[in-house]
Amino acid sequence: MAPNLDSFFKTVDSNTDAFIERLRKAVAIPSVSAEDERRPDVVKMGMFLKSQLDGLGAHMEARPLGKQPGKEHLELPPAIIGRYPAKKDESKRTILVYGHYDVQPANLSDGWNTEPFELTVDDKGRMYGRGSTDDKGPVLGWVNVIESHQKAGVEFPVNLLMCFEGMEEYGSEGLDDFIIEECKPGKFFEDADAVCISDNYWLGTEKPCLTYGLRGCSYYSIEIKGPGQDLHSGVFGGTAQEPMTDLMRVMATLVDGNGKILIPGINELVAPLSKEEQSLYKDIAFTMDNLYESLGSTTGIFPDKESTLMGRWRYPSLSIHGVEGAFSAPGAKTVIPAKVTGKFSIRTVPDMEPPEVDKLVYSHVQQAFEHLGSKNTMKCWLQHSGKWWVASPKHWNFTAAAKAVERVWKTKPDLTREGGSIPVTLTFEQATGKNVLLLPMGSSTDAAHSVNEKLDKRNYIEGIKLLGAYLHYVAEEPMKAAAL
Amino acid sequence: MAPNLDSFFKTVDSNTDAFIERLRKAVAIPSVSAEDERRPDVVKMGMFLKSQLDGLGAHMEARPLGKQPGKEHLELPPAIIGRYPAKKDESKRTILVYGHYDVQPANLSDGWNTEPFELTVDDKGRMYGRGSTDDKGPVLGWVNVIESHQKAGVEFPVNLLMCFEGMEEYGSEGLDDFIIEECKPGKFFEDADAVCISDNYWLGTEKPCLTYGLRGCSYYSIEIKGPGQDLHSGVFGGTAQEPMTDLMRVMATLVDGNGKILIPGINELVAPLSKEEQSLYKDIAFTMDNLYESLGSTTGIFPDKESTLMGRWRYPSLSIHGVEGAFSAPGAKTVIPAKVTGKFSIRTVPDMEPPEVDKLVYSHVQQAFEHLGSKNTMKCWLQHSGKWWVASPKHWNFTAAAKAVERVWKTKPDLTREGGSIPVTLTFEQATGKNVLLLPMGSSTDAAHSVNEKLDKRNYIEGIKLLGAYLHYVAEEPMKAAAL
Ligand SMILES: [Zn+2]
Ligand SMILES: [Zn+2]
Ligand SMILES: [Zn+2]
Ligand SMILES: [Zn+2]
Repeated sequence: MAPNLDSFFKTVDSNTDAFIERLRKAVAIPSVSAEDERRPDVVKMGMFLKSQLDGLGAHMEARPLGKQPGKEHLELPPAIIGRYPAKKDESKRTILVYGHYDVQPANLSDGWNTEPFELTVDDKGRMYGRGSTDDKGPVLGWVNVIESHQKAGVEFPVNLLMCFEGMEEYGSEGLDDFIIEECKPGKFFEDADAVCISDNYWLGTEKPCLTYGLRGCSYYSIEIKGPGQDLHSGVFGGTAQEPMTDLMRVMATLVDGNGKILIPGINELVAPLSKEEQSLYKDIAFTMDNLYESLGSTTGIFPDKESTLMGRWRYPSLSIHGVEGAFSAPGAKTVIPAKVTGKFSIRTVPDMEPPEVDKLVYSHVQQAFEHLGSKNTMKCWLQHSGKWWVASPKHWNFTAAAKAVERVWKTKPDLTREGGSIPVTLTFEQATGKNVLLLPMGSSTDAAHSVNEKLDKRNYIEGIKLLGAYLHYVAEEPMKAAAL
Repeated sequence: MAPNLDSFFKTVDSNTDAFIERLRKAVAIPSVSAEDERRPDVVKMGMFLKSQLDGLGAHMEARPLGKQPGKEHLELPPAIIGRYPAKKDESKRTILVYGHYDVQPANLSDGWNTEPFELTVDDKGRMYGRGSTDDKGPVLGWVNVIESHQKAGVEFPVNLLMCFEGMEEYGSEGLDDFIIEECKPGKFFEDADAVCISDNYWLGTEKPCLTYGLRGCSYYSIEIKGPGQDLHSGVFGGTAQEPMTDLMRVMATLVDGNGKILIPGINELVAPLSKEEQSLYKDIAFTMDNLYESLGSTTGIFPDKESTLMGRWRYPSLSIHGVEGAFSAPGAKTVIPAKVTGKFSIRTVPDMEPPEVDKLVYSHVQQAFEHLGSKNTMKCWLQHSGKWWVASPKHWNFTAAAKAVERVWKTKPDLTREGGSIPVTLTFEQATGKNVLLLPMGSSTDAAHSVNEKLDKRNYIEGIKLLGAYLHYVAEEPMKAAAL
């Protein structure tokens, strides 16, 4: 039976202006986690968030996460955690939600049309401002859901656990250990029945989606060095073995122009495509024009939608990012670099186990280098690695969210995966042992991490309804045992 | 007959302190041509040089070279040209000498042990300071030669024409046209009988050399682009053709690890090695240990001296310098660069005609790119090119210099070529139609362009004697017709 959500929805609509004001206040705090001198603003934003929830009667705590690794003079911003209602109702399910209150750097001079830390709403309802869609809009969404229930006099349908961090845009430093600790028996998050993360985006602009998979990422460096210092190519060209020559020849063996990974054994690790999975792709609201528009060109690998989505979501890819230590400025410089470090990464998918991928990469790179017969020395190592994540979209956490989407947006959501990684997703899954759902609020055109980031008013307001409706449907889903 | 140089030499010795003071004053003027805000200092250095020569009775002119191309708010520093004695002695030969009064950038924080613009002499007679060896020491060498002749009461043996520029370290902007113009009939340099440039270095630290050849340099860019903007590898990896992948695969086809150029046709342009030329290499004062010391490693291509010197001087080489537009910083960034530009250069030798080299490069790169079947677009172009130069070491200009070396240093000079290019050399040869000699003052350990640049006191003082003696022997050499 569909929960009676009408009065909640009506209250959201009638509080639209207040909710936009709340977002305006949040955007005005430049909580840039990557800039040391903005750290007080990050903390201020965490405290603003906490005070909003305190004011609604939630039990909130600001938990210190210690010093920032590598920058010991800097205190990490706190994890803002909470519970609403403040006292647990044992008859209700408990949903743990996550978001982040820090933002990417932004300067007017980067090419913004408006002040990045001043929410500016245009006549099409586009609300421009850094953090509007990533991730202040969704985080305040949960605040607005609680307030709307109070104003509407509607009973809150679940126990809500909250975990908001202030370092997401800078590697979520300190958070993994904290989550793992707080999910242990007797700790703050121990009783979560499922997890919901609202920190990603629709595949397009019209159709909502639920996301059940992410690729992992294993990032490698290949360092080749020889001479004791950079050399002048006039003096040493033709007499010294050049590390850059070796590096080009090794990097050329990694992948072909159509994205086929040439490292032996990698493709064999990929889970085979079942008929059932294959059939899912044709209905996804996505076209080749969507790809070309976001690429800004027609230089895609595949001519069709299905292969493109599979290339993004369910097959691995290898990208060469650049070279450290070589000449990289405009103009001409006749240097022979003494030590160069090539950087590449592999997006991983089921069933690629990261250690197995590392082994294949090291062995291939070693062989490719040895094949050159060079006197230079080579070292290949993993810079960082995050595993892929795939959840079951048949779990009640997803079926509830699907019903909420249908109720709010009058359409069934696309079930999508993503090509990128959100490492905290896997952490929550492993720490709670429960199903994790990615429930995006913003659309593909929101330009998170870019200039002119925005959140559409429609996505914000309907998104608040969606988050609230999701909690109501979650409360109603049959408690049958289901796969993660 | 050996000219009687004794009283000139004695006067140089007794004026050592004054000559070092003159160099100290010059080093103290930070005439860095690459830094806009230092332009007044470059001009000041030019005027200092002019005033020193004015004071010795030379006829001097500061010739404007116009605005700096691409920086029209900046006036180029003047060419300081002159004649000594002020009135030409028609009975004597006329030697045109060249040097530059600008220097490379230098900051204490780059790793200098002493203030770079403060000449600091240590107890081994090493005179540290930016420009000491490149090229203020040699330029002041000519001033000191004139002054020593006056003080010794020795008649000046030749007519000296001088051309000193202030933009050498920044591409000698404006100079080529000026030289070509002033070598025309009726102009300032019209009557030069030979040219002498002191702006390079010995092959080692003990044995002087005369340099009769330089490699040329043709510098190329390969630009490959596809997407409209940089992409996130999570979102687009596996769906977009990546320019960086294409670039690595094209750059890997240019040269092998032993320096063998893989571009078809290039090696066939190289002049064959004659038995006579081959025999010259074994006597050169150079060892593999010299190479390893300057490399800072043992990663040379060849195991023997002769092949190494030939690799540096008489065979072409290809170096890959770097990539513009890709990720080049430390750390990890998961970007797919939208447009990348690979940079490489070829050091050219007789008989490689630069336009022919260009043609072969373009055709090979085009084919290598087409072979990839990529949807990205590629452009390959020449950034700049300077031709190789080889003079006849049997010309009287060289035999005179060889006698001067033997007189001052008590040893026959090595006859060397160099792997790098000094483009003005070829300009002087072509504009005057006369023989050009490179007569270095400093040694291989002087660290021109690097931190802790120095000139040994011995090289400075004996170098002044050498420049003077060279002029005396030049005056005496038989006037027989000789090849360039
Ligand atoms: Zn985010
Ligand atoms: Zn973000
Ligand atoms: Zn120089
Ligand atoms: Zn120089």
